[in-house]
Amino acid sequence: MNLTGQNYIGNSPSGKGSKTFQTYNPVSLELNATSFYEATSQEIDAAVQLAQTAFNEYAATTPEQKAAFLVAIAEEIEALGDALLETYVTESGLPMGRAQGERGRTMGQLRAFANLLQEGSWVEAVIDTAQPDRQPLPKVDIRKMQEPIGPVVVFGASNFPLAFSTAGGDTASALAAGCPVIVKGHPMHAGTSEWVTKAILKAAERTGMPNGVFSHMNSSGIEVGTQLVQHPLVKGVGFTGSIAGGTALYRLAAERPEPIPVYAEMGSINPVVVLPSALVEKGNDWAKTYAGSITLGSGQFCTNPGLIIGLASAEMEDFKQILAGAISEIAPSSMLHPNILKGYEANKNEVSGQNGVAVLAQVNSATGTQANPMVASVTGAEFIANPKLHTEVFGPFSLVVECAHMAELNTVIQHLEGQLTGTILASETELSSRTDVVSNLGKKVGRLIFNGVPTGVEVCPAMQHGGPFPASSDSRTTSVGTDAIKRWARPVAYQNWPQNLLPNALKDENPLGISRVVNGEHTKAAI
Amino acid sequence: MNLTGQNYIGNSPSGKGSKTFQTYNPVSLELNATSFYEATSQEIDAAVQLAQTAFNEYAATTPEQKAAFLVAIAEEIEALGDALLETYVTESGLPMGRAQGERGRTMGQLRAFANLLQEGSWVEAVIDTAQPDRQPLPKVDIRKMQEPIGPVVVFGASNFPLAFSTAGGDTASALAAGCPVIVKGHPMHAGTSEWVTKAILKAAERTGMPNGVFSHMNSSGIEVGTQLVQHPLVKGVGFTGSIAGGTALYRLAAERPEPIPVYAEMGSINPVVVLPSALVEKGNDWAKTYAGSITLGSGQFCTNPGLIIGLASAEMEDFKQILAGAISEIAPSSMLHPNILKGYEANKNEVSGQNGVAVLAQVNSATGTQANPMVASVTGAEFIANPKLHTEVFGPFSLVVECAHMAELNTVIQHLEGQLTGTILASETELSSRTDVVSNLGKKVGRLIFNGVPTGVEVCPAMQHGGPFPASSDSRTTSVGTDAIKRWARPVAYQNWPQNLLPNALKDENPLGISRVVNGEHTKAAI
Repeated sequence: MNLTGQNYIGNSPSGKGSKTFQTYNPVSLELNATSFYEATSQEIDAAVQLAQTAFNEYAATTPEQKAAFLVAIAEEIEALGDALLETYVTESGLPMGRAQGERGRTMGQLRAFANLLQEGSWVEAVIDTAQPDRQPLPKVDIRKMQEPIGPVVVFGASNFPLAFSTAGGDTASALAAGCPVIVKGHPMHAGTSEWVTKAILKAAERTGMPNGVFSHMNSSGIEVGTQLVQHPLVKGVGFTGSIAGGTALYRLAAERPEPIPVYAEMGSINPVVVLPSALVEKGNDWAKTYAGSITLGSGQFCTNPGLIIGLASAEMEDFKQILAGAISEIAPSSMLHPNILKGYEANKNEVSGQNGVAVLAQVNSATGTQANPMVASVTGAEFIANPKLHTEVFGPFSLVVECAHMAELNTVIQHLEGQLTGTILASETELSSRTDVVSNLGKKVGRLIFNGVPTGVEVCPAMQHGGPFPASSDSRTTSVGTDAIKRWARPVAYQNWPQNLLPNALKDENPLGISRVVNGEHTKAAI
Repeated sequence: MNLTGQNYIGNSPSGKGSKTFQTYNPVSLELNATSFYEATSQEIDAAVQLAQTAFNEYAATTPEQKAAFLVAIAEEIEALGDALLETYVTESGLPMGRAQGERGRTMGQLRAFANLLQEGSWVEAVIDTAQPDRQPLPKVDIRKMQEPIGPVVVFGASNFPLAFSTAGGDTASALAAGCPVIVKGHPMHAGTSEWVTKAILKAAERTGMPNGVFSHMNSSGIEVGTQLVQHPLVKGVGFTGSIAGGTALYRLAAERPEPIPVYAEMGSINPVVVLPSALVEKGNDWAKTYAGSITLGSGQFCTNPGLIIGLASAEMEDFKQILAGAISEIAPSSMLHPNILKGYEANKNEVSGQNGVAVLAQVNSATGTQANPMVASVTGAEFIANPKLHTEVFGPFSLVVECAHMAELNTVIQHLEGQLTGTILASETELSSRTDVVSNLGKKVGRLIFNGVPTGVEVCPAMQHGGPFPASSDSRTTSVGTDAIKRWARPVAYQNWPQNLLPNALKDENPLGISRVVNGEHTKAAI
């Protein structure tokens, strides 16, 4: 099996366009060999039409059938073996260990959704039984559950070529919900994306899924994504990337004759509030830990800690010094693409060049597409006054904000935009006395972390990876963890419906043994 | 206590504007006495700022405190007595019995949300406990629950001056979630809205809620609503009304620097599929029942059955004849406002004037603001070819679509836009054999009804009042029933958080006794 550079309209490879592009190896600084065919307007339409045709049949498959499909995808990804991992490394510049780890995470996500389907309660069955004798009017029997919304478009993310791309969390959750998926592959890892496409299509064939349950479109510009989001048969969009990109897609979808939801997971500077007790008790340790978190994966995580907020003090001086020292010792690593490095350098220079910003440490040994880590500092007053300091610098950069007093620290938090995460470093005693900080930070973030680092996003039911805008376009949802499935479903109610014709989740005897709300009570009991 | 025509910025009456307006009595055809002060830009900003100030304190109240507030609102609405009911009748033209019924529904909704808070499980607590020994990496403790989004704007609906307006489902659900509410009152029932405002403010004072938890703005145009939706401190919007109005607000919110969710419940023609068995077994009964449903409340329900789809047959001829006869005997009743009547007449004439449309019955005895009911018919082929026939005629009107065969009937369904409801009339045997109709109709609607009428929307946990666009702007939510609370909340996760500082819903011992998901299991047990 080799890379072909084709698009996939369901099972059918297709390369009808004249425009092609190649991926780039950010370590060897060369183009990779395969030429990828940019999807044409006709190919895009054919893929969406096929997805719509597949929708009826796919939505009607049982939870067990969908679960088997997801597990088969995980197996087929593993079966790709070294070919996948080597393509991943040559297209991302990330090390082999990361490739292996991310592949494991991707397979784990697929299996987690398979388990969720087998458990079955995610459909949120709610049942109100009839009360024919109720006064003044009888009450009819009404039951509802979640059902899939229709064909979904997923945009691959540059910074997670596997776990947030072709068979990543968006695709896994949409397929689990019963929605066919059309992926717009990320141009920086089109080969990785084709390998994974082959695995998904093989899994679909092996488990008897309808042709069109998955399609894959190549694209190096914005036209393919735009056409996909505007297609009348597309009912939802998943995206991980920049604020500008995600917001543009969100607005594009809102302007459609029929608006559709766009779940865009975008930027975040992930503020870390260092309270005095943390500096006194273990400031040096935190400084070293954070030097690692700031530079992990060349800073290319959406949960990268880009802002460290504390009170000016002797301990803060020590913290800055240790942090600067630790950063200075970190060897630069390559970024995903020269364009991402260019963006990093521009944003870093923009922020560090603002009035009152002092550079604490700057590495200068980067070559090729490697990024030089930097940490800088600024006063709380300057930070509050200058919105340019609030923007994300995607890469190994963090800004320390030194506040004159707690009131200013709270004001800094109140001036932040929405964030994926907010971290508080403190003793438990100090945390318990700082309800102001917890309340202010909690209103800005999706996930509050105590004495830890924001990098490392566990895939589990309780994970919340999504926060107020611009962290994500819909703060009511998460893009990581099993609750991500809720984005691709809507409730459908059945009124006065015959028992034997109800979906299994809504039948009196509860044949699936799921948790349901029956006449207001949460229960797994039959009726 | 008298009507003052003032706005209410929290507890403070305010009428600083120079523009005033009066409501209209559609039965006596006269203006009502009170002059209402259109809210000024400064008053709007003051109300939102106060809501933001109140948010911290209100969000921190216990579920019991919020429940007491909601119950107190219901009590204070009842305590308004005849003054409220009389104003309702003079502003809506609806009969006293409807006023009483809608007041009961409104109080019932408030109490339903109070009960929901006391039960407590609505916060969807999800807990994943730590696994310090997990390989290759330890797993941290993560727990999440729903928390309120912030100040919410609610637009009063013309057709439900109580149940979908000032203290209606949107307000009750937002207050229950912990969000302060600013109501933009509907200009057609500004007096009813002021009475209810007084009740809410009295309840807030009596139960110790912060000033600003509720504000009320008068408005006769679109400027006040526009400014409210654009205000940076507003975090969500509830709306019930026209497709044009709801869609405009949705897009306005999407264009904000920080987009916010708009839950607009808009138009619907509520298709009713009459399968042959229903006509054979009880066609005459259904015809009479539907004549009542079509003309109920002068057809001014969002679930009004505007489309009846069946196969051409001798039984269908009988059905049309009985339906026409029953409609002809119905006495016209007044609509809410001359402008609504004008819209009804224009849309009715537009639809009934299309090629191939035959008028089956038309009442001609209306006077004043009364609406003349009409039923008409058209072939399936004409309906499919002419999108003008798909538009809602808000009022006592319905269109019978006669299809040549089942394939055409399915095509008619597939050509429909999103709907609040879809009804199937049939024998159980025929329903079980028509999975095509169920599947096609199910993909278009929020609620499927078997052998019933769509009018009559039960307030209960299983209710789904919301469907694919343009029935509503967000088909994943409902505007009726207790799940409406989910619109005003977003998940917040706590990672590695000290036990004693967690919200009660997330503590190991489950002090609230709620249903939670713990390590993937649905349970009420403590950890």
